Amino acid sequence: MVTVMTKIPKTHPRRESLELRERLVDGFASGIVAPHGLIAHGRGEMFYYLLGERTVKHARVAARAAATTLIVAKQPVISVNGNVAALCPRAIADLSKAIPAKIEIGLFHRSDERLSKIQAALEREGVSQVLGFLPDERIPGLEGARGLCTREGIYSADAVLVALEDGDRAEALVGMGKKVVAVDLNPLSRTARSATVTVVDEVTKALPLITGCVEELKGDTTEMDRALERYDRDENLRAVMRLMASNLEQLGTEPGSQ
Amino acid sequence: MVTVMTKIPKTHPRRESLELRERLVDGFASGIVAPHGLIAHGRGEMFYYLLGERTVKHARVAARAAATTLIVAKQPVISVNGNVAALCPRAIADLSKAIPAKIEIGLFHRSDERLSKIQAALEREGVSQVLGFLPDERIPGLEGARGLCTREGIYSADAVLVALEDGDRAEALVGMGKKVVAVDLNPLSRTARSATVTVVDEVTKALPLITGCVEELKGDTTEMDRALERYDRDENLRAVMRLMASNLEQLGTEPGSQ
Repeated sequence: MVTVMTKIPKTHPRRESLELRERLVDGFASGIVAPHGLIAHGRGEMFYYLLGERTVKHARVAARAAATTLIVAKQPVISVNGNVAALCPRAIADLSKAIPAKIEIGLFHRSDERLSKIQAALEREGVSQVLGFLPDERIPGLEGARGLCTREGIYSADAVLVALEDGDRAEALVGMGKKVVAVDLNPLSRTARSATVTVVDEVTKALPLITGCVEELKGDTTEMDRALERYDRDENLRAVMRLMASNLEQLGTEPGSQ
Repeated sequence: MVTVMTKIPKTHPRRESLELRERLVDGFASGIVAPHGLIAHGRGEMFYYLLGERTVKHARVAARAAATTLIVAKQPVISVNGNVAALCPRAIADLSKAIPAKIEIGLFHRSDERLSKIQAALEREGVSQVLGFLPDERIPGLEGARGLCTREGIYSADAVLVALEDGDRAEALVGMGKKVVAVDLNPLSRTARSATVTVVDEVTKALPLITGCVEELKGDTTEMDRALERYDRDENLRAVMRLMASNLEQLGTEPGSQ
């Protein structure tokens, strides 16, 4: 693995965001992340910045609904792409154990080499079975290699968690009648707007948050029902957008940022 | 040059933005753009999206002040990095002829190979002299290769145009007493907030806009004075931020986007 980590001063106000950026660039250098994944990360960075670079209460409400959706599913699957694997392979492993859920790699810019590297990164975190290398089914409506999936995993799943996912794929999974749990920093994205439950938070925070909710809610049907009742996707996304808009206005009046 | 252009339907509502993205990825494949440049482009994409993906009137006001600043300078220099060279080498060549201004390459992640490729891209557009390959001075306050510049170019310049530039570098140039004209989609960035004149617009639009203003204003001292009088950086940036915040709120109520 080529290390291109840049030193970031410990006191830097945006240290965490810059460290995530370096993790992505490392993942790119090691062949896990695609060039388009870097651009997508930049888009996410700006939404996270507008969010105040913190987990907002709307994300906590959504995380409880997300956890419930994954707990009650008969065949839940976590879909992993290059960016997520580069940022938080451990968090994926932890969530898959807590639910428990299968893990399948799904790439927009698919290559066997990238798939192998992502698989290896997950196996290093103790994941024993990673699906996706030998696809035997297709997601209807997605052309070419993007549509490949496995019968054992995503094709048969009744609930799929997608993080930092392309809108076409998220919509296609919803179109197959699956419950889709999305982690996405852009409340305006088609992924965010089409998923059953959308957690608007940075993925390295969101996955452990959902894992914590899974551990807390499992077996507690009253609280699980309440979690679903309290969550309204469109209302949640609108609240996040209002927050971002308000932060943007406020940032404009403060000195020094970015 | 490796071409990885993805076909984008002509009717796609965000076609232009997606084509710029592909141009960046092409520039990356051909060695002009650095990995961090891809992430930075993603950040810009989101601000452009919030801007409504169009040139707003505040950008037109700023462009007139920018043109005037470059016209009246004794030694104006256009600083070029990988992203700008990948996106619009012709626009750089045109602006440098209109002012006229020297062109110097300045890279955050400097490598001789990348420098040569950017130089070649500019020369293909008819630029006869590109500075930056043999630096003999430093920009005070910038460590390592980032601080390198030429005495003939940026070091001696009284006005420098920077596009999509890192905040440290923009601030350091201002610290040297130079007038800095910035093109930046992020009205919150340190570059935008420290430059003498900041044009918040997508660079492939902004440079031709400034070139047009140069051609119109040159020799017309009354209009040039007026252009500077009418421009207030902080007020201009605040107006752009309010517009973005308002667009963000509105987008939240409309179906389908991103």
